[in-house]
Order: sequence, then C-alpha cells, then structure tokens
Amino acid sequence: MDSSDTQRKNIAIIGGGLVGSLNACFLAKRNFQVDIYEAREDIRVTKFARGRSINLALSYRGRQALKAVGLEDQVVAYGIPMRARMIHSLSGKKSAIPYGTKSQYILSISRENLNKDLLTAVEKYSNVKVHFGHKLVKCYPEKGVITVLGQDKVPKDVTCDLIVGCDGAFSTVRTHLMKKPRFDYSQQYIPHGYMELSIPPKNGDYAMEPNYLHIWPRDTFMMIALPNTNKSFTCTLFMPFEEFEKLLTSRDVLDFFQKYFPDSIPLIGKQALVQDFFLLPAQSMISVKCSSFHFKSHCLLMGDAAHAIVPFFGQGMNAGFEDCLVFDELMDKFNNDFSMCLPEFSRFRVPDDHAISDLSMYNYTEMRAHVNSRWFIFQKNIERLLHAIMPSTFIPLYTMVTFSRIRYHEAVLHWYWQKKLQKHPDQAYL
Amino acid sequence: MDSSDTQRKNIAIIGGGLVGSLNACFLAKRNFQVDIYEAREDIRVTKFARGRSINLALSYRGRQALKAVGLEDQVVAYGIPMRARMIHSLSGKKSAIPYGTKSQYILSISRENLNKDLLTAVEKYSNVKVHFGHKLVKCYPEKGVITVLGQDKVPKDVTCDLIVGCDGAFSTVRTHLMKKPRFDYSQQYIPHGYMELSIPPKNGDYAMEPNYLHIWPRDTFMMIALPNTNKSFTCTLFMPFEEFEKLLTSRDVLDFFQKYFPDSIPLIGKQALVQDFFLLPAQSMISVKCSSFHFKSHCLLMGDAAHAIVPFFGQGMNAGFEDCLVFDELMDKFNNDFSMCLPEFSRFRVPDDHAISDLSMYNYTEMRAHVNSRWFIFQKNIERLLHAIMPSTFIPLYTMVTFSRIRYHEAVLHWYWQKKLQKHPDQAYL
Repeated sequence: MDSSDTQRKNIAIIGGGLVGSLNACFLAKRNFQVDIYEAREDIRVTKFARGRSINLALSYRGRQALKAVGLEDQVVAYGIPMRARMIHSLSGKKSAIPYGTKSQYILSISRENLNKDLLTAVEKYSNVKVHFGHKLVKCYPEKGVITVLGQDKVPKDVTCDLIVGCDGAFSTVRTHLMKKPRFDYSQQYIPHGYMELSIPPKNGDYAMEPNYLHIWPRDTFMMIALPNTNKSFTCTLFMPFEEFEKLLTSRDVLDFFQKYFPDSIPLIGKQALVQDFFLLPAQSMISVKCSSFHFKSHCLLMGDAAHAIVPFFGQGMNAGFEDCLVFDELMDKFNNDFSMCLPEFSRFRVPDDHAISDLSMYNYTEMRAHVNSRWFIFQKNIERLLHAIMPSTFIPLYTMVTFSRIRYHEAVLHWYWQKKLQKHPDQAYL
Repeated sequence: MDSSDTQRKNIAIIGGGLVGSLNACFLAKRNFQVDIYEAREDIRVTKFARGRSINLALSYRGRQALKAVGLEDQVVAYGIPMRARMIHSLSGKKSAIPYGTKSQYILSISRENLNKDLLTAVEKYSNVKVHFGHKLVKCYPEKGVITVLGQDKVPKDVTCDLIVGCDGAFSTVRTHLMKKPRFDYSQQYIPHGYMELSIPPKNGDYAMEPNYLHIWPRDTFMMIALPNTNKSFTCTLFMPFEEFEKLLTSRDVLDFFQKYFPDSIPLIGKQALVQDFFLLPAQSMISVKCSSFHFKSHCLLMGDAAHAIVPFFGQGMNAGFEDCLVFDELMDKFNNDFSMCLPEFSRFRVPDDHAISDLSMYNYTEMRAHVNSRWFIFQKNIERLLHAIMPSTFIPLYTMVTFSRIRYHEAVLHWYWQKKLQKHPDQAYL
C-alpha cells in the first residue's frame, strides 16, 4: 500500500453504530482520513437510547472481523458463551441442544458495551474524528458531497472521496442511492413484532442456566432469553402485532403468559412482567434488500443500511461486521483502489447478504408455521445424527452460517444439496 | 353531499401530469378547494419535455374515468382507433389479429395533447388552481403540510386537508410515506430499455395501415408502432440494455435492423434511423409496488406514484385513471369522508393494482422468453376459437383487462381458472 497516496484521501462514514465504528477502525488502519458523523450524542456520556435489541449473539464471522482490527479478545472477554439452546416445553421441561462441538459456542454480547468499546477503539486512531450530534441531511453521491447538521443547526457541506453509509435499516444514504438508475430496492415489514422483557438475578445469581440461549418455541409465538453480565436475562417475545393488540389489560397479559410461557412468570415476576409489557409498544421488524451496495467509486452501503434482515438467524450484526472484513480484503487485493473495490464489493457481497436475508426470512416463516418444542428437538437430533455419521458431507446449515466463513450463498447451495441427499425438506436452521 | 362542509376542505395534488390533472377534475366537481403543484412549467406554453413515451393506448377503464368528468368524447375525437394488432414477421409478412369484436378497439392517444386538454379542463373549475414551476421539497403527511419551492426559490409551507401524490414513478410524496411504520415497498428495474423512433408520413399519408397497433415480435427484442394524428407512427424498440450497448456505430444499427426488422428500414429511413437511434440513450423501465396507497386520512398515492408498471400490457395510464374513478366511487359511497375513503381505497385498490403490475411483468418475461410472430398468431387464434365456442365462459385475459372494468385481480383469478380448464398454460395476454 502506498500510504502517501491514501493518506490524503478522506472518507465520511455516516453512522457511529456497530458497523460504522468497526468500519472506521478498518479504514483508519489504512491511513485514510476518517470522519464519522453520528446523529446521536456520544453514548459513552449520555444515556444509551433504547430502540434496537439489548443483546446480540456474536458468532464466528463477527469475531473474525473484530480480530482483524485487534479487538476480538477484548470483546469476547465480556461476552457470555452460549454453548447450547435450552428448549423450554409448555410443561416446563428443559432440553439442552448443543450448537455444535464442545468448542463451538456463540456469545451473548451487550450492544451498548460493544458500541462504546468500538467508539473508544476508533478514537485511538489520530486520523479518525467522530462528530457526534451530526445528522446527515443530504448526500450527493455523484459529487462526493454530504450536508450535515450539527448542534449549531447550520447545514454544512463536506467534500470527501468516499461516503460510507452505515446508518442502519432506515439509512438516509440509501434513500439517495435509490434514485440512481437501475437500483432495485425492497423493504418489507413482517407481521410479527417484538418486545423485550427481563429476568432479574435470583439470590445474586442467574435465575436460569447462564450458558444457554433459552428458547420457548410455541409455533406462531416465540420467546428467547439471552444472559447478561449483570446476571439478568433479556427476554424477547416475538408474536404477530394482531396478537399483541389483543392483550390490553394486566389480566390479559398474565393469562397469556400462563397459557404459553408458564415457567417464565415466576422468573420475570408478575408485577415486572405487566409493567414492562406496557412500557413500550411492540417494535416492528423490517427486511431490506438492495441490488447494489455502491455508486461508482464514491459511495458505499454496509450493514443494516445495505441489508437489514429479520433477527431469526442471529446474523444481523455478524453479517454487517463481515461486510467490513470483506471490504478490507478487497482493499488488500486491489491496493486501496476505490474504483475497483466498490463494484467488486457489490458483485461479491450482494449474493451473500441476500442469502442470509432469505435464510433469516425462511427461519421466520418456518418458525411461524410449525416450530414447537417437540418438533425443534426432533429436527436438531436428526441433524446431529447425520453430522455424526458423515461429518464432512453433512454439515448442519446452522454450523455453516454460525461457525464458519463459508460464503452465505454457498452455505445455502450446500444446504439445498444436503436436503436432496436426505430427501427431507425440513432440515432445521434455528 | 354536504357542500358547505367540503367547500372549506382543501386538497393539494402533487403533479399535474395525466393522473394529477384528471384527479383534480374529479375533486373539483366535489367542491373541494384544489391546488395542483407541478414542478415543470405549463406544457401549453413551453416545449413539452420528452421523457415518457409519446403516445399511449387508451382503453375502456381510462375512457370510463374520462367519461365521469365529461371528457371522454373530446379525447376520443382525436384518438386513432386500433382495431387489431398487425404482426410483422421477419419475412415481411403482415397478419392482422383483431383485439376483440368489431366494436372493440383501443385508441392511440398523444400524451402531450391529452395532458394539455386535461389541464385546460381542470382550469375551467373556479375552485382549482394550478401552480406550475412549483416543486415539492418536503411533505409531512401526519400534519397535512407540504413545503413547495416556486420560482422565487423561497420554500413555502402549505397546510391542507389532503395531500394526493400523483407525482409519478419517482414520487417524492411516496418517499415520505415509505418512512411510515409497516409500509412495504419495492422498486425493480427490468433488464430491457426502450427507445423511440419515428415512421414519417409517405406521400402525405400513413406509411402503414393506420388502424392497427403494429408489432414486430422477435423473442427478446420487440418493436411496436402506434399511429399519430399527423400521419406518422411512433415506434418503440424494446431490448435488453446490454444489446443496446452493442450497437455503437451507424453500421451496427443498420445491420441490426436489417437482421431483425428489415421491413421497417425503408419506412423509418436509413438516415433518420441512425440519427434518432443515437439522439437519446435507451430509457429504463421501473416497476414499483407499495403495500398501501394512503396514510391515515391525510395522504394518498395514485397512478404511477402508487404503482409504476412496465408497459407490456398497455395499462399504465388506464390503471391510473381508474384509480381516480375508484376513489370517486368511494367518495360517493362514504359521503366524502376521508377517514373512511382513504383506508378503503388501499384495501380495495391495492390488490387490483398489484394484479395489473404482475400481469404486465408476466407479459414482459413471457415476451422475453418466446414471443415470435408465429407463436403469437397461434396463441391468439386459439383464444379466438375458444371464445367463439364458449363466449361467456372463456373470455381472453386481454379482453377482460382492456375492454371491461372487471377488477384486475378478478380478471387474473378468472384467467387462472380458464387456464386450468383448457389445460394449457400459455394463454396469451399481449
């Protein structure tokens, strides 16, 4: 790399969330002048705004990206390993189903802590500046100009060599790319909403087994719980908006939980359950697809801005982090030449991000149709058996997606092939 | 209708194109105060901007809408009836295939004249004002406020009871609705582009039979020609962009036409063909779908803004005009109550506009795959035969779509049923 060349190029990253701040680390390492524009105030000094889910499942792809900028160990240190799913049946019976081999696990990570650490890491680079409280109002991808609005409320034009939109599912950068010729786009909300609840510590310890991702599969309803470092769990209840709308009183909520998730009531606590349930309305989930992630050599989309996906494969953050890693690999290959890297990023990465989007949506529709605890356990046992018999031929889809960097679209092709092999259409994926 | 009530309500229509100006007539008749904001200057005094296709096929749905505001006769008077398709084979053989019975025909209409007439018609209402050269910059559907920019370049806020987005395939109003919760959206460009060419009059008369829609079906390439009142024809050549890109020189173009459309060369003229071919680049075609056409009782989308469709069923304008008529019928039914009419418009109309969108796209993919002149003639003859044998049971899809107001989605259902009946999957639709 010719650093004298790239040192003078400046990059504007829109959004200082998880993908924006990680991406800034990658680009800072390459000696670019990097400016992050983040609409919110610095979350390290102000209250962290609720909105997205509290905790996330970090797996192999995300870890590899963190590793490339030297942050893996630090992040993993406060992650809580989840080595298996813990399936809660309606009767209260619990069954553990390992995610893979003994060394394979996913990590429950606090979104807030991770974002804070990434911002602190990025600010260690002298060639990075984070502009908090700066909202993008306009973006001219063809000119490499952005208009930002800071605290002084005076719109300011900034010229840059590259605009990187890491501004999430409702990306402003993307709305400007959408006006470009031949840019295909879709956004789709699913009929389910989600709501977060909490299981507090019990006698100073975790109220359930900590090293598991707890799942209550109930066909069209589903609840999951991930452990936090403060010994609480964060539960996420997924169900159709129309079902949420039926629960209008405390009585309705308690009856509903008594019917579908009875073992969770003493864990959450009746009073807290009712209180939390009515604290915020159920949140919607959107799936966004773009036919391209770039415009010429001036503008790029990454993470949710490029491909917001539904959360049913736990790959949203991991896919976004892998975007950064893939782009970094292309920058190596093409010697930091934006005019080569940007088109190649779209060509290479779009099929993979579409594949994980489709898989996540497939998990959603399958789950909605017929995932109950008995079915789930049965499916997983079949997979484990097949994998045990033919370890190199049959690799569960979940393993390929979660514990490898096999390209997402290749994992799907291999999965199709395996399904043909076993003549069984319902190999599980959750 | 209580006119004292509605007289005070004001409606802002964004876009003074075909659908916007027709819609203004409907709403003016109901005594609303109507303001049209049109970004371009008045096309009756300035040069008509090229961009969209020059002529259009007006059929039953569009005519019914014009009739409801008393404009049908005037528009039909300068339309040129096309009673049949004229299929041009590669060898130069021409075969006429009627569209329906002797009394059924479609009309070739000049977009420019139609738009001018609609604007003149709308300005006859004292309660309508057309603001030319006024661009919508922002829109707050929840507040009923729009910000427009006139010639003075000073943004002006306007408050209104209803905002109607008739601002076309790249609608600005729609970009604001897209940010509303649970609004699903997709835009898709097709790989084909189109280019307009011209067949001038010959010895003062039409160079081909005038009362036909001329078609040169050549699988992935297709050309059509519609007659104009000045005795010329406007040809539209459809082909994949990648094929357009191969034709770089005059020689390439002439060779291409010699190979695929030899009979058209003397009609267009070699010199004009080459000149027109390189005048403008091929234009793209977009298909836009929305899951809803309204926001609360404040904002509505109609025409291309709600459902831009590919042009392969000739229903774009007709569907947009029928939108206006359907909304008018709902206003009758619900006594001008926006809070009833708007949700009902989405509920009722979305399935129909999705159906005509799908049919148009289906025509496109079928055409691309295997529409040549022999196939086309064969299909149409089968349909005519079936319709002759069972006139009330078997109605060609084309007839239902073009010569009736059978709801588009019901036409599709009936078509499915007919296809099952004849056990023949390829009933034609062009």
